[in-house]
Amino acid sequence: MIRFDSDYLEGAHPAILQRLMETNLEQTAGYGADPYCQAAAEKIRAACEAPDAAVHFLVGGTQTNTIVICSLLRPYEGVLCPDSGHINCHEVNAIESTGHKVLAVPARHGKIRAEDIARAVLAWQNDAAWEHIVKPGMVYISQPTETGSIYTKAELTAIRKVCSQYGLPLFIDGARLAAALAAPGNDLSLPELAKLCDIFYIGGTKSGALFGEAVVIPNPGLIDGFRSIQKQRGGLLAKGRLLGLQFDTLFTDRLYFRLGEHAVKLAMELKEGFLKKGYPFWHDSPTNQQFPILTAEQAARLRRDFSFEDFGSARQGRRIARFCTSWAATEEQVRCLLEKI
Amino acid sequence: MIRFDSDYLEGAHPAILQRLMETNLEQTAGYGADPYCQAAAEKIRAACEAPDAAVHFLVGGTQTNTIVICSLLRPYEGVLCPDSGHINCHEVNAIESTGHKVLAVPARHGKIRAEDIARAVLAWQNDAAWEHIVKPGMVYISQPTETGSIYTKAELTAIRKVCSQYGLPLFIDGARLAAALAAPGNDLSLPELAKLCDIFYIGGTKSGALFGEAVVIPNPGLIDGFRSIQKQRGGLLAKGRLLGLQFDTLFTDRLYFRLGEHAVKLAMELKEGFLKKGYPFWHDSPTNQQFPILTAEQAARLRRDFSFEDFGSARQGRRIARFCTSWAATEEQVRCLLEKI
Amino acid sequence: MIRFDSDYLEGAHPAILQRLMETNLEQTAGYGADPYCQAAAEKIRAACEAPDAAVHFLVGGTQTNTIVICSLLRPYEGVLCPDSGHINCHEVNAIESTGHKVLAVPARHGKIRAEDIARAVLAWQNDAAWEHIVKPGMVYISQPTETGSIYTKAELTAIRKVCSQYGLPLFIDGARLAAALAAPGNDLSLPELAKLCDIFYIGGTKSGALFGEAVVIPNPGLIDGFRSIQKQRGGLLAKGRLLGLQFDTLFTDRLYFRLGEHAVKLAMELKEGFLKKGYPFWHDSPTNQQFPILTAEQAARLRRDFSFEDFGSARQGRRIARFCTSWAATEEQVRCLLEKI
Amino acid sequence: MIRFDSDYLEGAHPAILQRLMETNLEQTAGYGADPYCQAAAEKIRAACEAPDAAVHFLVGGTQTNTIVICSLLRPYEGVLCPDSGHINCHEVNAIESTGHKVLAVPARHGKIRAEDIARAVLAWQNDAAWEHIVKPGMVYISQPTETGSIYTKAELTAIRKVCSQYGLPLFIDGARLAAALAAPGNDLSLPELAKLCDIFYIGGTKSGALFGEAVVIPNPGLIDGFRSIQKQRGGLLAKGRLLGLQFDTLFTDRLYFRLGEHAVKLAMELKEGFLKKGYPFWHDSPTNQQFPILTAEQAARLRRDFSFEDFGSARQGRRIARFCTSWAATEEQVRCLLEKI
Repeated sequence: MIRFDSDYLEGAHPAILQRLMETNLEQTAGYGADPYCQAAAEKIRAACEAPDAAVHFLVGGTQTNTIVICSLLRPYEGVLCPDSGHINCHEVNAIESTGHKVLAVPARHGKIRAEDIARAVLAWQNDAAWEHIVKPGMVYISQPTETGSIYTKAELTAIRKVCSQYGLPLFIDGARLAAALAAPGNDLSLPELAKLCDIFYIGGTKSGALFGEAVVIPNPGLIDGFRSIQKQRGGLLAKGRLLGLQFDTLFTDRLYFRLGEHAVKLAMELKEGFLKKGYPFWHDSPTNQQFPILTAEQAARLRRDFSFEDFGSARQGRRIARFCTSWAATEEQVRCLLEKI
Repeated sequence: MIRFDSDYLEGAHPAILQRLMETNLEQTAGYGADPYCQAAAEKIRAACEAPDAAVHFLVGGTQTNTIVICSLLRPYEGVLCPDSGHINCHEVNAIESTGHKVLAVPARHGKIRAEDIARAVLAWQNDAAWEHIVKPGMVYISQPTETGSIYTKAELTAIRKVCSQYGLPLFIDGARLAAALAAPGNDLSLPELAKLCDIFYIGGTKSGALFGEAVVIPNPGLIDGFRSIQKQRGGLLAKGRLLGLQFDTLFTDRLYFRLGEHAVKLAMELKEGFLKKGYPFWHDSPTNQQFPILTAEQAARLRRDFSFEDFGSARQGRRIARFCTSWAATEEQVRCLLEKI
Repeated sequence: MIRFDSDYLEGAHPAILQRLMETNLEQTAGYGADPYCQAAAEKIRAACEAPDAAVHFLVGGTQTNTIVICSLLRPYEGVLCPDSGHINCHEVNAIESTGHKVLAVPARHGKIRAEDIARAVLAWQNDAAWEHIVKPGMVYISQPTETGSIYTKAELTAIRKVCSQYGLPLFIDGARLAAALAAPGNDLSLPELAKLCDIFYIGGTKSGALFGEAVVIPNPGLIDGFRSIQKQRGGLLAKGRLLGLQFDTLFTDRLYFRLGEHAVKLAMELKEGFLKKGYPFWHDSPTNQQFPILTAEQAARLRRDFSFEDFGSARQGRRIARFCTSWAATEEQVRCLLEKI
Repeated sequence: MIRFDSDYLEGAHPAILQRLMETNLEQTAGYGADPYCQAAAEKIRAACEAPDAAVHFLVGGTQTNTIVICSLLRPYEGVLCPDSGHINCHEVNAIESTGHKVLAVPARHGKIRAEDIARAVLAWQNDAAWEHIVKPGMVYISQPTETGSIYTKAELTAIRKVCSQYGLPLFIDGARLAAALAAPGNDLSLPELAKLCDIFYIGGTKSGALFGEAVVIPNPGLIDGFRSIQKQRGGLLAKGRLLGLQFDTLFTDRLYFRLGEHAVKLAMELKEGFLKKGYPFWHDSPTNQQFPILTAEQAARLRRDFSFEDFGSARQGRRIARFCTSWAATEEQVRCLLEKI
């Protein structure tokens, strides 16, 4: 059985485990006040060309999204978000548990447009009963999106502009950022992305780490009390150096980027293989999630040897399948799959 | 520089790292639905003699306390807690962020008594304005306490009785449970503890794991929706098997117990050494935290070679110091310290 | 200028003011522990044929919805609600501020159907990632709806059935309940409504009271600690008798019903008048809110003498207008309006 | 039976009911956008000599405290408060339900001192683990306090100074402000009080209104989105003019002040009477709450004809009693009481 269900099926890149072994008996201060976190933050600042950025290390994505969003909103504000956004669909009521409404905006393959944001803000501003309506207080998007698509530089620049116009902080969920950076057609470098948003995170869990997400705040004055809120929300790891060590390793010799490139390269081979055999696709994803459309019979046959996600119904009784590649996937695994389709 | 500031200064017991290495490239399902979590839960059930218990794995203590407490309380209830309790002192407003009040009860060296609980409940019941006052809805204690003391079987049995009488679930924070189980004078076995409370957790972070706390609910019907609340609160680790692997290792060949015994043995040597030299102690802790009282001059001298926590002022201008031993501390380190005092 | 913007433009029915005057200097206990609240509750129980019901008096609708909903849900549950529901649209993030998600279901003229509820529950139950998704935990509907329509006995019975099947408490917002009870075509009596839901409220603010909503819980064991939650959420009025006096008056000699009948009678005259002149309507509302469609020119002309709400755009550049009648509206006011259209 | 249990036993001053009658059938806009609220705000600004102040009208005290406090704090901050403060003792977990901790400071007869505040802030600032501890984010005090005492100008000026020094907004709960302003020995005028704090409220419920509290924010830019938070928390009354009318009446011809003077005058007579008969007092309250100490026998005898609150135990088995006078109490009632003691 070869699994393509997700990109968090394995442990960590061997270089990370190696570092954990080497440093295991060192004694360091807790909660991120250690030299590894410091070194990792420095490397991330350099990679982002954001020399003043605050960098915080957290354990997982839901935790990160919750802490960032509740740190940025006033009590009566909500967060604009694609209706397919992770915070709207797959994090239970994490955001609502902090008192805020997720303001879902209809998305197309995971993406919203600058004009969608403007429309939502104007609808609130122009409503006579605006005091009775949640105010859009910030914008959450994902790069790549939950369905593998990516924002172009032009699209993100337009979103940035409308956010600035209406005073909305822009937050980018980068759980799979490595895949976006490696995507064919991507025209957004990490420094450019850092310049176009107010806060984002670099996902480790889905890109070679055991766990861990690195929040980057280019303007470090954006949020007051981030670490206390991190602690309050259970997101301040006691042995914080585990996060520092992992990100320090990932940002040494471009490992983070190389792992993304590996995953995307295999995803492209997988896509090519399906396309060659004539399979239709739900949409043309340039990242490590691929969505071929299968008949019930095709899906059942493949499930004998492979696992993958069912992503909903398509036309004529078919189903959308999701195949994920990752830093740990191998050419061999993809070849096996393509042989069976 | 040898550090005695805390028991989470190092990585993990080598056996744990070894397991992580061996299993690194295995593909398993996420969020704890893997064979390692299953095996670990089974071993914990056996060790607790609680065959029906639900066992959940979380990353850290604040997270665990928050999730357990908000899962158990009605909206108008609060949690009775020693005033020195971790949730009252060192977790920011984690509990309050879920809407509940921490009802601090004056403690003696970290412990409260059954009669304190009864008094608090009766004060609420007998107040004419009871509907305007937070209802005590559960009890939180720690074993060992934040200052190293332990509850005896008689004390815990009395607390259990009063909790049952007033319908209060009893939750035990076992962040350092291994140390309590190994303490000279301890008369509470793990199965006994499991029988006397409604829910508790077995701390991994401070006892040989990289991170991780195992919540045990002997009566699995106690809480509805625990895993969803875990997800909501950012406490459901994507690569959940990392937790399963660690606890599976800790509960193989009594490793968890042996690590506690090691830490406590060194703590007792440390205590003996200080006592022999005539140092007074804040109180007589039987676990891995020791609190000798130092003059300013003594403290300053020791700080040249050792780090330890300042725990507040004592009489005659002296200070209470906290020295922690752990699974990773060595005879050599303790000897070095004792030579210098 | 005659106002038809809403049904809370005036003070209270004169009989209510009269009672306030007569009892003004009486001394009574606070927070609803007075004979007037007791008497009002008794009369409401009788009117609902719900002899065991718990009856609680609150000040306003948002407060009431918030307290009821947060009292009924577990931390990971949300409330199913028509997308046009008041809690989703016009109460800011009141529900979310208690930690819960409003699960908006597409509605038709304010109504949802039993099958919509079943579909939402099954979608949650059948999702492999259900632990990552908010669980539908209860159902909120309004009678009449925010746009004036009413549920029939058959429709409400079907909703009741599906709620029972899936264990969802059913809550009916009766802010304008008097109007529904008086609507032509209504086949749901107050006792029938009380039998078909788990909890509802009888709106006073929009039906002759200065303010006030009476929550009715036919099975009084449904909610534990309601009054404490009421206090916590700022909804326990110090001089609670003001609420008791008002509802006691409204439920004497059918006053509450008669006020609803009056408002609806005038609304029907208003509708007839518009229809006779050939105005199209947004939809056929049988209650005190009427939605004729006006050209810009027609609207502008009417606004010289009357105020009414703009309710959004209709076809061909026209606008939906909302005219509300109330217990205080007069035949004369309606005649004036109809003369000008 | 004559009641001295509280100052909210009766309805409203007749002048208020008269205004409600006179204006009953006027049609006004809802939610406070009416001429009466405007007029009342103007009169309050004048009385406070705070020409730029924002003035908001709310229904009750718990609601007001909750909305003000959650509007002012960052997520990780708490509110410093006398341990006897209303928000700490008699509002269930209203503040905690918004996510914030009430940081109780030991008080003497309801009052805290500037140095108590400084000490709490410095303790937080100087703690090595400050990120794990709730930050004092604002100060809440009551004038008069819950036990009737008042702050002097010197005391409040010192508190103001320390609040400014540490950047803490100062909020004064004025539920019984009329009594403080009328107290013998009071040296704080309303304009002085308005200058010394950042936000306060003028209590109506306990001083002649049916209900209602007027929040005054001398610097109107202090809080962003107050009205939306008011709506969210169920504190925006639909028929807002009821609040405007009441405060407009109270601030016409000094009625608010005169009602306070009346209540305090009777309280002083009551105190004199008890003192003459040799009764000891819990403490020397200059406002409308008086706390004589009674033997069980004395209390039982008085309870045949009068109601009053039991306020806890005193020495030698005696009890502290609380007698409240109000705008509605009469010379006759006090005389009756004094005859029986």
